[in-house]
Order: sequence, then C-alpha cells, then structure tokens
Amino acid sequence: MWRAIIQEDFVYFMRILLPWVFMLKAFLLLIILAKRGVNMGIVVQKFGGSSVATTDKIRKIASAVTRRKAKGDSLVVVVSAMGDTTDELIELAKQVTDNPDKRELDALMSTGEMISSSLLAMTIKSMGYEAVSYTAYQIGIKTSGNHCKSLIEDIDDSKLMEAINEGKIIIVAGFQGINDEGDITTLGRGGSDTSAVALAAKLGGICEVYTDVDGIYGVDPRIYKEAHKLKEIDYEEMLELASLGAQIMHSRSVELGQKYGIPIYVGLSCSDLEGTIIREVKHMSMENKPITGIATNDDDVAITIKDLPLGITTISELFGRISARRINIDMISQTAPIKGKVNITFTIPGSEINDCMGILTKFTSKENIIIDEDITKFSVVGIGMKTTSGVAGTIFKLFSENKIEVKMITTSEIRITCAIKRQDKLKAVKIVADAFGL
Amino acid sequence: MWRAIIQEDFVYFMRILLPWVFMLKAFLLLIILAKRGVNMGIVVQKFGGSSVATTDKIRKIASAVTRRKAKGDSLVVVVSAMGDTTDELIELAKQVTDNPDKRELDALMSTGEMISSSLLAMTIKSMGYEAVSYTAYQIGIKTSGNHCKSLIEDIDDSKLMEAINEGKIIIVAGFQGINDEGDITTLGRGGSDTSAVALAAKLGGICEVYTDVDGIYGVDPRIYKEAHKLKEIDYEEMLELASLGAQIMHSRSVELGQKYGIPIYVGLSCSDLEGTIIREVKHMSMENKPITGIATNDDDVAITIKDLPLGITTISELFGRISARRINIDMISQTAPIKGKVNITFTIPGSEINDCMGILTKFTSKENIIIDEDITKFSVVGIGMKTTSGVAGTIFKLFSENKIEVKMITTSEIRITCAIKRQDKLKAVKIVADAFGL
Repeated sequence: MWRAIIQEDFVYFMRILLPWVFMLKAFLLLIILAKRGVNMGIVVQKFGGSSVATTDKIRKIASAVTRRKAKGDSLVVVVSAMGDTTDELIELAKQVTDNPDKRELDALMSTGEMISSSLLAMTIKSMGYEAVSYTAYQIGIKTSGNHCKSLIEDIDDSKLMEAINEGKIIIVAGFQGINDEGDITTLGRGGSDTSAVALAAKLGGICEVYTDVDGIYGVDPRIYKEAHKLKEIDYEEMLELASLGAQIMHSRSVELGQKYGIPIYVGLSCSDLEGTIIREVKHMSMENKPITGIATNDDDVAITIKDLPLGITTISELFGRISARRINIDMISQTAPIKGKVNITFTIPGSEINDCMGILTKFTSKENIIIDEDITKFSVVGIGMKTTSGVAGTIFKLFSENKIEVKMITTSEIRITCAIKRQDKLKAVKIVADAFGL
Repeated sequence: MWRAIIQEDFVYFMRILLPWVFMLKAFLLLIILAKRGVNMGIVVQKFGGSSVATTDKIRKIASAVTRRKAKGDSLVVVVSAMGDTTDELIELAKQVTDNPDKRELDALMSTGEMISSSLLAMTIKSMGYEAVSYTAYQIGIKTSGNHCKSLIEDIDDSKLMEAINEGKIIIVAGFQGINDEGDITTLGRGGSDTSAVALAAKLGGICEVYTDVDGIYGVDPRIYKEAHKLKEIDYEEMLELASLGAQIMHSRSVELGQKYGIPIYVGLSCSDLEGTIIREVKHMSMENKPITGIATNDDDVAITIKDLPLGITTISELFGRISARRINIDMISQTAPIKGKVNITFTIPGSEINDCMGILTKFTSKENIIIDEDITKFSVVGIGMKTTSGVAGTIFKLFSENKIEVKMITTSEIRITCAIKRQDKLKAVKIVADAFGL
C-alpha cells in the first residue's frame, strides 16, 4: 500500500510539478541569455569623414547609433576626422615647413579624430544614452613601424570591456595609435577602417563600415550605369579591386578582416539600403559568376625600351633603380630575344614619367625609348576564376569581335588585366559587364 | 745630501707642475659646470593664443625660441591653442547640444593645444634644432577636481628631464591634464599659465609668460594714458588685481608661483621691451609707493534692502540663497539697527539682477528694495598699505576735494574698494594715480 501511495504521489508530483520545473528552467535560461547578451552582440561601426563632416551630420549619426543601441547590441563606434579636417591640418603643417617632422605630423593629424569622437560622444550623451570617447592612448592601441603609416600590434581591451559591460556606447578616435616610445602614430590614409576591423577582431565582434557610397559595385556606376551592387565580395576580390584603385576600403583593413575572419559590412550612413558584406565567399562564387568586378585605371603610361641587351644584370639593375626611386612599376612584358636583344614594356604612373626617363636614359639612348600615354588598364577580378576556365578566352573573343586592341596582358590567380586604348574603355566595360552579368 | 736633492726636486716639481695642476682643475671645473649647465638654466616660456594665432606667428615664436636656446638655456615652451580655436571648439559642442558633457568637452578642447604644440615643434625642428611636443598624457600632468576646472596635482618629470638632458626644446600642450581615471581634463580659462608655472616649479626653473600686452600696468592705460608699466609686482597685489578683473594672468598660476616661489615674467611676445616680474617684493614696496595699482569695474549694481528684521537667521538665509544660485556677492554694508530693523546694501554682477530679485521678493516687498545701477567699483591695491598708514585718508580727502561721492567702502589688508558714481570714474583714477605717482 505504501508503494501504491508513493507511486500515486509520484505521478501526482510529476503531473503538477513538472510543467513548473520546465517553466523555471526556461526562465533561468532566458535570464542567462539576457545576461550574456550584454557581451554577445558586439558591433564595431565605423563612420568616415564625410559622414561626420558637420555637426548636423554628427547628430544624424548619433540618432542612428542610439536606435541601433536600443535594439540591444553593444556598440563600439570608430570615427574619422570631420570632413576635410585632416587635409586642413596637413595644410597648416605645410605652412610652417616643407618637410614636417613625421612624429609631430602624427601628433597634429591625430587631433582630427579626437574632435569628432568627443563631439559624437557628447551628442549621444545629450540623447540620454551612456557614451564615452577614447583616444588610442586611453585604450592602448599599440602600433609599430614608421610614423604616418604605422601598424596596429595590439589593443588593450580591459577598459573597453568594462565600458561595454556598463552598457556604454564607446566612441573611438580612429586612425591613431601609440608606439613603444609613447608617441602618437597614425595608420595612413583610410586608417580608421583598420582601427575598426582591429577592434572587431580584438573584441570578437562584427564590423560595419558606413560611408558615402551604398555598397560595393562590380563596376563603377559612373562608367557603367547598369552596374549591380554586390551582396557580398570575398576578401581577396576586394583586395584586388583596392589595389586597382577602388578607394572604398583601406586595403590593410580588408587584410586584417581576412586574417581574423571578421566580416565587414560596407554601406551608406543613416540609410536602410542594403550594402555589401566582405567575407569569405568561395563556395558562393563557384555557383555564381566567375567575375565579381571590373576596374579601370587611366593614370598609367606604358614605356617600351627597344633593343636592350639581354642579361639578368642589366634588366634587374634597371628595375632596381626605378623602384629605388619609389616609382611603382605595374605591368611588365618582354619579347623573346633576337640576337641577344629584347624589347621590354612596362607601365608606371603617368606622374612619374620625368623621374623615370632620367633613369632610363642612363641605360639606353632616347631613340630606343617609346612612351605610350594612350593606355587604360582594364581589369576583371573574380574568385570564381580559380575554378572557372575560359574567362580570359571569352574576354579576348569579345575584344576581338569589338575591335578592341589589347596592348599588354598580366594575370594573377583571380585577376586578368589588359592595357587597352583609352577610347575603348567604356566599350570594353560594357561588353564584359553585359557578358558576365555584372 | 739626499735630503737636499729631494727638497730641490720638490721645489722644482712645485714650480713646474703646480700651474698645470691648477689649469687642469679649472678645466675640469669648466667641464662640470658645462655639463651641469644643461640642467641649470631651465626656462619655461608660455605663449598665449594670440601669440600663436597663425602659422606666420608660430614661425616667429619658433625663431624667438631658437635664438633663446642658442644662448644656452634649457627651454620648455608651453602653448595655448591658436587664436580663437578653443572658442570655435566650444561652438561646435554647442551646435550638437546645449549642455555638453564635461568629460567630452575637455577631450574636445584639449585638441587645440595639441595642434599648436605639434606645429611649433615641427617648425623648430625645421630650423635645425631638436624639439619634441608632449601632451599631458605623455608627461603625466596629473590633475584632480572637476572637469573643465581641474587642478594640477603633480607632473612626472622623468620624460621631461630626459629630453632636456638630450638638449631638446620641449613643447608642452598647455591647459590640459589627466585625472585618476585616465580622462583628459582642462584647467579652466587661461589654464596654460598654470601649466607653465607648475612646470617651472617641478623642474626648478623660472617662468616667462609672453602675451599681447607688454607687461603689467598700475592703471589700465586705456583709461589713464600716463600709466606707468611696473617693473615688478608682488604675488598678492597681482592676485588682488586679478580678482578685480585684470585679465592678464590666470589667478591660480600666480598663487602657484607664490606657493613655490617661482618668479613669473610677463612680457610682449617676440619683443625686446622689458616686461614685469611677479615675485615677492615686500621690501621694495615699503621704500617706494604704498599703492601699486588701481582697478575699476563697471559691471556691478548695488541693491539696498530697507527695514529688514534684524536677526542672524534672516540675513544668513538671504545670502545663503543668493550664493546657492552662484550669484557672486561682493561688497556688503549694513546700517546700525533702528527698532530692530536694518538696511543692508550689497553689490552683485548686473547680469544677475533678475535672478537675484526672484530671491529677494520672498524676503521683503518690492517697495523695500532699491537698485542702484550707477556704480563703479574703484579699487587701489598695494602691498605697501600693510606698513603705510593714511592711504585711505588721503584717498577720501582727494575724493571730497573733487566732489566724488563714496557710496560704499570695503577693505582688505592690501586693498581699498569704494563704490562711486560711474561719471566720476575717470576723474577718480586720474587724481589718485597722479597723487600716488602711478
């Protein structure tokens, strides 16, 4: 009988209590998730100079940031200097000396981001949210390397995590760091992007870069109106496009994102338009288009040297001297030797032509040097090219059908670059973009 | 014989060698002095905002600094923000919020001095001298107290002394400090003066403040053309004049100079005109004039309350409420009680009159309140008054002879202040300045 009572009690217990136990469990789980949630969704947002160019724009950014905060994310906001502030500071430096000391130039330039970060923090505070601005010094953004182009070595996250756990919106002055001597350094043009990605990597968050373009396009919409905005792009593709002149992202920030696997969203400030995510997308591109983007560049000229004596010493000395003057050689092609002599063609930025001629005339007479200023570098970039064959063939067939002369060709694993005549640029972009559905 | 030889040798030794020994000694002494000399003459120079308002002016300051350096002094240069930069930064803050957060406002304002200090350092470097700019963070200018008006607690001189010993000209961003939380603070308007005096105190140097006036005058030359420039003035006198509205020096910098016995030279930037030294001058004034300076102030109004019931509670509550509203009461006089009632007169800044009336009408009816807007506070200041009697008598005799009505009087150990009619101001200044030879 005892047994029966116990059993009956047990069944009763289970029927009445079990639902309560489950509800309690679910409730506790919710509490734990909510508590964790404070640190879970760390979002590093970066706003460029044009997004914070005026106090009106700073107020708009502050509203956007607080709306996002209200949704529950932990926010770290990296800002560039307001509008043209950095250029204006450099102009001041040039007024006092032609060759400003780089340590002092860094100290000078770093003030631009301190101004915008403190203004944004006080704006957000005035809207009733907790916010705090930090300089590189205050959160230990340690850098190495030369002034004006230093590299981030590490970030001390203790102060940042403390502020995040207190629910504060953190505003960080981008572009700046501190080296081992305690001097202020800067990260080079566009360095705030790198500040943002480094913070996201350190804090284990995602990175969103807000700018004055609404995302990344396969082709510059200014030269190809039908251009589609990309939903996503691989780090490698973005790096190739950046090296070809796309000004959207600081290359080092993309490299850093790739190294630490941080997805980087690029989109329009204060807008609901969907932007582009830079991340690893190999598996996607295979199924989709072999080409992600087209880039063109009109800034280079091609130089041909005829009848250069074949010999490793001469050619390597020639290119050695050119790069010693920091002239950037891009495409190089060499003909097969005839009677021990070769023709070499290479491209350099048009602005370096006089400097370069000074070096060349020491190797050969002026008559042997031919300068072709009528070139456009036309590049197609796509991670899909790794696995899709025939892209080059398709492009050359299109060019030949449309009477576009190809002067030079270079390729990498995910890029094909041709030098063509400038007059053919728009036509080339259109036929290739149409053919590959960009 | 041996003895004779030894003696002879000894004499010979002394005659030949001794001059050499003395010369060696003198030479060594010179070396020691020269080595010490690097640290001996530390001069802290401060240049105000108008002295560094443009890059042209910064170049002029750089020339003056390098000329001084060439004479052998070790230089620490403190700079304010360029021209109206601080006001422009505050204006930016006001554009984003009516009530800017003070931590962020400090971070914002501190950038002004970082700009001028890095610009001056790079200018000096471009002239072939070693120079380095430091922020408060970099040289540990520790502060306490509230944001926007913090107090310097200490300075870490290790980095400074290292740079001085390396022969570098040090440029320090004035006005700023760092509190215990690692936040940037500022020292209040004119705070760069205090930065300079604190540095001189810490480094054991002298302090020179360069500005757009050529020294300190006993009477404002704008209201008394014959005014003499003072060669020197005591800290106490300078503090009294500052409290009476002389804008030349930040009061706290003078207090700090007095506390640590640092003489402060005040003079015109980039000029050979002799300025004024602020230091302890008791012994001098006793032999000279009992009055060092005259100050006037037209900004106050006098309020009289009639028939106030005599009682400590009422009067202290009245003044308590007024100061709780941060209204600055200056002169107070009270008549002898008649039938348990008194008349009280006091002065407040004219701009606070409406605020003050709101409080007064809770204590008495409007009919019992008399406002006199026609007053000028006329003050004479002089350390000599401590030991010279009859100064007040002489002044009142002069006033009476010239029919200048005295409405109120207050005195301190080294100051006499009278409230007079505004129309009598210039006459009062002239007759007193003439009588005391200012």
